[in-house]
Amino acid sequence: MIAAKGYAAQNAKSPLAPFSFSRRTPGENDVHFKILYCGVCHSDLHQIRDEWGGSIYPMVPGHEIVGRVTSVGSNVKKFKAGDLAAVGCMVDSCRTCENCKKGLEQYCLNGMVGTYNSYERDGKTPTYGGYSNEIVVHQDFVLTVDASLPLQGVAPLLCAGITTYSPLRYWKVGKGHKIGVLGLGGLGHMAVKFASAFGAEVTMLSTSPSKEADAKRLGAHHFALTSDAQKVKSLRGYFDFILDTVSAPHDYNMYLRMLKTGGTHICVGAPPTPAEVEAFSLIVSRKSIAGSMIGGIPETQEMLDYCAANKIVSDVEVIAMKDINAAYERMLKGDVRYRFVIDMATL
Amino acid sequence: MIAAKGYAAQNAKSPLAPFSFSRRTPGENDVHFKILYCGVCHSDLHQIRDEWGGSIYPMVPGHEIVGRVTSVGSNVKKFKAGDLAAVGCMVDSCRTCENCKKGLEQYCLNGMVGTYNSYERDGKTPTYGGYSNEIVVHQDFVLTVDASLPLQGVAPLLCAGITTYSPLRYWKVGKGHKIGVLGLGGLGHMAVKFASAFGAEVTMLSTSPSKEADAKRLGAHHFALTSDAQKVKSLRGYFDFILDTVSAPHDYNMYLRMLKTGGTHICVGAPPTPAEVEAFSLIVSRKSIAGSMIGGIPETQEMLDYCAANKIVSDVEVIAMKDINAAYERMLKGDVRYRFVIDMATL
Repeated sequence: MIAAKGYAAQNAKSPLAPFSFSRRTPGENDVHFKILYCGVCHSDLHQIRDEWGGSIYPMVPGHEIVGRVTSVGSNVKKFKAGDLAAVGCMVDSCRTCENCKKGLEQYCLNGMVGTYNSYERDGKTPTYGGYSNEIVVHQDFVLTVDASLPLQGVAPLLCAGITTYSPLRYWKVGKGHKIGVLGLGGLGHMAVKFASAFGAEVTMLSTSPSKEADAKRLGAHHFALTSDAQKVKSLRGYFDFILDTVSAPHDYNMYLRMLKTGGTHICVGAPPTPAEVEAFSLIVSRKSIAGSMIGGIPETQEMLDYCAANKIVSDVEVIAMKDINAAYERMLKGDVRYRFVIDMATL
Repeated sequence: MIAAKGYAAQNAKSPLAPFSFSRRTPGENDVHFKILYCGVCHSDLHQIRDEWGGSIYPMVPGHEIVGRVTSVGSNVKKFKAGDLAAVGCMVDSCRTCENCKKGLEQYCLNGMVGTYNSYERDGKTPTYGGYSNEIVVHQDFVLTVDASLPLQGVAPLLCAGITTYSPLRYWKVGKGHKIGVLGLGGLGHMAVKFASAFGAEVTMLSTSPSKEADAKRLGAHHFALTSDAQKVKSLRGYFDFILDTVSAPHDYNMYLRMLKTGGTHICVGAPPTPAEVEAFSLIVSRKSIAGSMIGGIPETQEMLDYCAANKIVSDVEVIAMKDINAAYERMLKGDVRYRFVIDMATL
């Protein structure tokens, strides 16, 4: 076993604190790498605090991981020591179900293995995430990273990036489409970057007037204040798609009315309470409300390659490991533009 | 003007009773025809009783109309006296919006003109439906009917038929797909016929064990009792599509769980209360919940032609006009297999 260190929560109430643990000795298919940066996702906090239930402690969070390879197993050809490497939300899946075979490991019918707060396929070995100094992952779940991009901005692509890239690709959003992006946070700012890069006309839908300038800097063509009833009314039937990154409860029917005939409201943020959707509002204009979760391994690699080719990274604020608990407090207030990333050299 | 007679509701509380009114003198683009049969749709009753609000009285309901042409205007080439003709839920639309131009008149952005309980494009002349002896309709909204099919079974195709045909075509349901049809009524029995004709594997989802034999006779391959928790559990992740014809409140999340990754729950029945949909259940398997409303004129003609080529009609119980109020009472109890159709010779 390899002695590793990181930051962990010991229970749902405890702040994150230093934690020593073990990583497995790398096997013939494993990539062992030193973590350089790890993004801070809102879901880290939900899980630390057991807000989704079933949390496994001690918990080392983090699933937006970039690093540099220190060693590889004998069967690993894609990586060698010194290469950059990345890991996102998954470190394994069954590989045999119809979804895994299609490269949709995130929808593994036997349950994907999360990067943290999960158990390996043996059903008993807990997984520990990226708030740590090193990690050992099966090569099939390790992504390659182009050295041309600033690594701290690459880390959030592994969750915030792929979570917005995947639905935009699946629903073929691009030239000729009008899309509304709901919420300008970690996911929303990546959605704006990708949707405008893909050629769509992008409107930021937000409750904060202060975000207008930033939204436009990130690539939005228009900004609509969703607390402005007149503005909301003027957008009736306007969008082909709405990409909804908000995980606080909100009125879906108001946004459904903004869709054109045949439009789709895509949820990537999941509020804790059910959405009250009027079937009538779906029926009268053949609209859909849909969901999407992260992305599969092949698509995650495609997204990273697309970002390298198009110079796209996340806008980040780099923090030291010791400041993680304060960062969570700021994140809860929406005080981050747009993702905290931990510099693991500070561990 | 032409003196016409029919059955009308005078207000939300009155039963239907004989009513005399006028049809416009046919213009150069009009088709004037004698109504032979008119189907009885559940929406007729909702509108008579003003359950959707905004009802216009006196109201002559009926939007599943087949008849025989008596005269045509000078610009009408597609029809001549003696031809069969049909009219569905619409008698006009703006014809200029992007949806009308695409043949999606049902989604007319300026509001389609309903066959009854609506106003003509002049905004003041009420439209009267098919519970009457004759009707005058612009040729663009009159469908041709093949003489090979029993006309009483054709009438319900104009609403129940197209309402289920259109979404099955839009979502390209066919060979290799598994579809659940929710509810075996006027819409549901047509959904079973079409989906099985298109090559899909069809499962009837119903709360009534008594409907199993009938569902299978109509073309369903399987029957699942939705009150059987064990059966419901066994269908988790089973369907590519669910076509939901139920307009009583029901648990959408139970049915979403029956969908495969990427599956779509299509609503054509609209409950009066909002559907409580867990965004999480959409997200974790990239599922959608969507709606669809009747179909455009080109697609309605396509559906009628498909039915003629494939010998598909609705299963009906023919009634006399005077028995309409009693028929409504039976309809409310679900005591009809599967559509009442009024024989207008009895008027």
